[in-house]
Amino acid sequence: MKLEASLTAENINQKLLSVEYAVRGPILQRAQAIERELEKGVPKPFTRVVRANIGDCHALGQKPFTFIRQVLALAACPELAAAAAVPEDVKQRVQEIRDDCIQGSVGAYSPSAGLSLVRTRVAQFLEARDGVPASADDVHLGSGASDVIKAVLTMFAEQVDGKPSAVMIPVPQYPLFSGTLSELGLVRADYQLAEEQAWALQPHELERAYLQASEAARVRAIVVINPGNPTGQVLTRENIEEVIKFAYRRDLFILADEVYQENIVSKPFHSFKKVMHEMGAPYSGMELASFVTCSKGWAAECGLRAGFVELLRLQPRVAAAFRSARAVMQCPTVLGQCALDCAMKRPVPGEPSYPQFAAELAAVRRVLADRTATAYHTFNTIPGYFCNPIDGSMFAYPRVEIPERAQAAARELGLSPDEFYCLRLLEETGVCVIPGTGFGQRAGTFHFRTTILHPRDEFQHMMDCFRRFHQTFLENYS
Amino acid sequence: MKLEASLTAENINQKLLSVEYAVRGPILQRAQAIERELEKGVPKPFTRVVRANIGDCHALGQKPFTFIRQVLALAACPELAAAAAVPEDVKQRVQEIRDDCIQGSVGAYSPSAGLSLVRTRVAQFLEARDGVPASADDVHLGSGASDVIKAVLTMFAEQVDGKPSAVMIPVPQYPLFSGTLSELGLVRADYQLAEEQAWALQPHELERAYLQASEAARVRAIVVINPGNPTGQVLTRENIEEVIKFAYRRDLFILADEVYQENIVSKPFHSFKKVMHEMGAPYSGMELASFVTCSKGWAAECGLRAGFVELLRLQPRVAAAFRSARAVMQCPTVLGQCALDCAMKRPVPGEPSYPQFAAELAAVRRVLADRTATAYHTFNTIPGYFCNPIDGSMFAYPRVEIPERAQAAARELGLSPDEFYCLRLLEETGVCVIPGTGFGQRAGTFHFRTTILHPRDEFQHMMDCFRRFHQTFLENYS
Ligand SMILES: Cc1ncc(COP(=O)(O)O)c(C=O)c1O
Ligand SMILES: Cc1ncc(COP(=O)(O)O)c(C=O)c1O
Repeated sequence: MKLEASLTAENINQKLLSVEYAVRGPILQRAQAIERELEKGVPKPFTRVVRANIGDCHALGQKPFTFIRQVLALAACPELAAAAAVPEDVKQRVQEIRDDCIQGSVGAYSPSAGLSLVRTRVAQFLEARDGVPASADDVHLGSGASDVIKAVLTMFAEQVDGKPSAVMIPVPQYPLFSGTLSELGLVRADYQLAEEQAWALQPHELERAYLQASEAARVRAIVVINPGNPTGQVLTRENIEEVIKFAYRRDLFILADEVYQENIVSKPFHSFKKVMHEMGAPYSGMELASFVTCSKGWAAECGLRAGFVELLRLQPRVAAAFRSARAVMQCPTVLGQCALDCAMKRPVPGEPSYPQFAAELAAVRRVLADRTATAYHTFNTIPGYFCNPIDGSMFAYPRVEIPERAQAAARELGLSPDEFYCLRLLEETGVCVIPGTGFGQRAGTFHFRTTILHPRDEFQHMMDCFRRFHQTFLENYS
Repeated sequence: MKLEASLTAENINQKLLSVEYAVRGPILQRAQAIERELEKGVPKPFTRVVRANIGDCHALGQKPFTFIRQVLALAACPELAAAAAVPEDVKQRVQEIRDDCIQGSVGAYSPSAGLSLVRTRVAQFLEARDGVPASADDVHLGSGASDVIKAVLTMFAEQVDGKPSAVMIPVPQYPLFSGTLSELGLVRADYQLAEEQAWALQPHELERAYLQASEAARVRAIVVINPGNPTGQVLTRENIEEVIKFAYRRDLFILADEVYQENIVSKPFHSFKKVMHEMGAPYSGMELASFVTCSKGWAAECGLRAGFVELLRLQPRVAAAFRSARAVMQCPTVLGQCALDCAMKRPVPGEPSYPQFAAELAAVRRVLADRTATAYHTFNTIPGYFCNPIDGSMFAYPRVEIPERAQAAARELGLSPDEFYCLRLLEETGVCVIPGTGFGQRAGTFHFRTTILHPRDEFQHMMDCFRRFHQTFLENYS
C-alpha cells in the first residue's frame, strides 16, 4: 500500500515553493481572520478592518464608469437594448464590438491576441498618446497585464553561455515581478531606487546591479515600473533617457510597466516608446515591451481582467514563438476586451455619453489629487515618518522609523521589523497595509505600502490611525 | 553600434520554439487568407469557407442562453435592472453574486481562487453529480480550463532523481497538452487510444508507454480526456477503473480533463472522482485534478474564459505552493465567474427563467444528438472513411484512407499525407478541418478532426463536401 502522496514538497516544481506575493499574503489572511472575529463579537480596539493592501479602486469605493458598464451589459445581452434606456453611442459601440465577434457573440473565442477591433483601438490610443505610429499587430491582449507580463518574462527563461538568465527589477518593486521570476527560475538582479532622489533610477546603481548579477548570471532584461508601484513617483524624461542608454549599452530588453500612466495628478507622463523614438537611432531600434491594463487608469476594472502588451521590434521568429505559446491558451476574456475597448476610446464631447463620463472622470481625478496631497502631507508631519512626493499610482510608501527595542521584539517573533510594525498596526487599529519586505527596501530602512483611494472619511480615519498608532508605538518601544 | 536584437531565436526560451497548437495553426491561416481572397472576388470552386477547426459552439451558431446573458448584463450594470424586463430569478442571482463582490462590483479583484459563492456552487454541482462530498476549498477557478490545466502541469516541471519528469497523454490528444508540456519542458509519454476498441485506454498500452518513457524520464502523471477530444468517445466505468488501478500501481497523479462531461448524447458519464470514491481504499485516497469549463457543456461560453480545477487530496505544502503561484496572477475574470455560477446552478422548474432555459437546452441537445448521429452515419458510408461511435464532445475524428500516390504528392510538398488531404479539402471545398497530425494518430493511419455543431444546412453541405471531395481525391490519386 502506498503511504505517500505522489506530489510532494520534495518533488513538486521547486521554483513554486519560493513564489511569494505579499499583497495577498499573511497580513491579509490575518486581516480576514480579524474580520471574522469582529463578526462573532470578539472585542477589539476598533469596529472594522480598513483594507489598504491592494490597488483596487472599485473595492475602495470608486463607482464603475456608466459608459463601460452599459457597453458590457449590452454586449452580453443585446436583447436588452430595446428595453433599456441607454444612449445611442453605447449601442453603436456594442454594434462595433459585436461585428468583430464571430456570430456577434462575446461567448465565441476571439483571436488569441484579441479582437482585431480592440487591438486597432489600442494602437490608435498609443498613437494619440505618443505621436508615434503604432500597429495593431504589435498588440497582444491578456487576462490582465499580469498575464502578458508573465508571458513576456517566460521568453527569457533560458541559459545563455551556460549561465542562467537574470532580469533587473527595481527595489522596491511590485511583487508580481519577484514572484514570476521565481516561478520561471530567472535570477533577480535588484537595483535600488534612490529614495533620497524621489525614487529615481541612478545610472551608477543600474551599472552596479548589472555587474554584480553578471558574475553568476547573464543579465538579459530590465523592468521599469513607471509610475512606480509601490513608490508612486513619475520618472522624468531625462531619467528615462538614462535608463534607455544604459539598457542599450548593456544590450538589455526593456520591460516598461506603465500601467499607472493615467493615474497621475499633474506631472507629464513619458512613455518609453516615445522617448526611444525621440532619441533616434540607435535607441529607436531597440526592442520594447510596454504594459497597460484596464485594472488601472480611470477605468480601474480589475475584476474584468484585461490588459495588453505592445511588443516592439521583435525578431520574426521570436514573435512567432510568442504567438504560438499564447494561442495554446485560446484567448483573453472577450468581455474584458470590451472594457478595454472603452478605456482606449472614451466618449468625447458631443457624444451622448460624454457629460456623464466627464463628470465621473472628474470625480476620479479629484479623489486621486486629494488623497495623494493629503497622504503626502500627513506622512511628512508624523514624527518618524518620511514620504517622497506622490506623483500618481494609487499608493504611498512611507519610510518609518522603528526603534531598536521594537526591532528586537520583532526578531523575537521571527518577523522583520516592518512586518512586526504592520501586524501591530493591524491588531491595534484594524488598518491593513503591506510591509516593505513584500516590495523590497534598502537594508536598515523600513516602509509599508498603503493604498490611498478610500472614501474621504475612511481615508481620514486611516490617516489618524497611522498618526496615533505611531506615536504610541514610539512611546512603547523607546 | 548594436547589430542584433537582444532577444533572438538562439537565446529565447528554447522550449517556446517547439510549442505548436494545430487548432489555430497553418490550416486556419490559409482559411483566413482564402476568406480574404473571396472578399476580393478571387474565383473559387466555393462561395464561402466553412470553419470546422475549433470547438466553439457560439461561433457555429448556438445562441447564448438567455439566463446567463441576463445575469451577466445586470451584474455588469445593475442600474439596468429597473428598466429592463428581466425575470425575478435573474435579479436574485445577480444580487447573490454582487453580495460576494467587494462593493458589489464585478470590477473589483476577487479572491485568487475565485469568489467564494461561485466555488461553493461548483462544490454543490460536483456533489450532486457524484454523490460524493465536495469542498469549495478544493476548487480553483481559472481563465478557462486551459489556464488551470497549465497551472497544474507546472507543478510537475521538476527533475526527480536526476531525470526529467514525464506526463502521459493520449494519442490522439487535445494539443493544449502537447503544447503546454513543450513550454514547461515536460517529457511527453504518449499512449495510444485503441481506435479498434472505440478509443478505449488499454492497460497493456498504458504499461508499455509508461515503461518506454521511464527509460529516460520519471513518469509522474497521466492525462485522460473523457469525453475525448478529438475522439468523442465516453469511457466506460470499467475502463476508468483500469486507468485508476494503473495510475495507483505506477504512482501517477491523474489529471482528468472532463470538460465535455455535459456534451454527451446518451451514455452515462462517470467522473474519475466518483469512480475512485466507489472503488474505496486505497484508490479513494489518491490525488486527483479534474477540469471543467464554461466553454463547453450546454453554456458553451468560450469567450468568457471561465473554468475550474477540483484538486483533491493535495499535500498541504503542495496546495500552498499552488495557491501562491495563482495569487501572483490576481484572479480569474469575475464576469466569467458569473457565467460559471449560472452553469453550475441552472434554473429549475418553478423559477421564472426555467421555461425559456429548458427550451434553449432542448435545442442544444437536439443539435448534438442529430449531428453526432448524422456525422457517424455519413463518415461510415463514405468509401475509405471509418469513424468510431461519437458519444459526445462536439467533434468527429474519422480515419481516412489516403492512396499511396497522394502520400507521395504530400511528401513532395513536405507535408504529411493528412495535412495534404486537409489542405486540398480546403482549397477545393472551402471546408476547414484540422489534420490528425495536430492531435496524433497511430503511424500509417490518417485522420482529421471536424467540429460537427454547425447549423443543419451548413452541416449537410459540409458532409456533402467530404463525400464528394473524397471520391474525387481517390479518383485523382489511385
Ligand atoms: C505595477 C503593476 N503592474 C501590473 C499589475 C497587474 O495588473 P492586472 O493584472 O490587474 O492588469 C499591477 C496590479 O496591481 C501593478 O500594480
Ligand atoms: C479537451 C479540452 N480541454 C480543455 C479545453 C480548454 O477550454 P477553455 O480554456 O476554453 O476552458 C478544451 C477546449 O477546447 C478542450 O477541448
